[in-house]
Amino acid sequence: MFLINERDVEWRRLDKGDAKGVLGKYLITDKEGAKKFHMRVFMVMPGGNTSFDQHIYEHEVYVMKGTGKLITIKENIKNEVTIKEGDAILVESNEIHQFFNNGVEPLIFLCVKGDPSIY
Amino acid sequence: MFLINERDVEWRRLDKGDAKGVLGKYLITDKEGAKKFHMRVFMVMPGGNTSFDQHIYEHEVYVMKGTGKLITIKENIKNEVTIKEGDAILVESNEIHQFFNNGVEPLIFLCVKGDPSIY
Repeated sequence: MFLINERDVEWRRLDKGDAKGVLGKYLITDKEGAKKFHMRVFMVMPGGNTSFDQHIYEHEVYVMKGTGKLITIKENIKNEVTIKEGDAILVESNEIHQFFNNGVEPLIFLCVKGDPSIY
Repeated sequence: MFLINERDVEWRRLDKGDAKGVLGKYLITDKEGAKKFHMRVFMVMPGGNTSFDQHIYEHEVYVMKGTGKLITIKENIKNEVTIKEGDAILVESNEIHQFFNNGVEPLIFLCVKGDPSIY
């Protein structure tokens, strides 16, 4: 068993690709003994966005605070949805995805990713 | 991509084993296209507890509201910790675990479980 409180982890800046205004905390990863999937929390500042991203591993996201939009592209079909507190979102394997904060407060969400080894 | 808001899913009673006062919502499962890990939310009422449970798949938990305690047993060593909002918890493969709400408000936590097929 491993336990950490989110408040005891510092935000760190994540500047992957074209990401803008994104901070993250890695809560449970392989370092903590999680071999199959990892739990992180991200904060996207107003006007910011995560990177335009695609990878084999799935994401499962839970929006804790704020509003925004999510763009996904699968088999060349683009989909755009608004997201808000309480939304649970599955981003499928190899689905292109990008989260935007078009609101006025930070957009905060949990994001679980599968370890590439399970694919 | 699949999206559902937690508020649009009804709580259902979960009476597994010796569970008491436990409600759950299954947010993202294999039915929604998640093949590797699933996202659920549980509510344990004051005085209630989840079942005394052990299985090959890991749990990753995030406490959203309330307080309680978690008992785990691994290699015959018992561990008891208090849990509170913001706690991120890894329950390892085959680790015995049981969550208790010894507070006065509902204990609500997200719980991601690995699909048995990845073990």
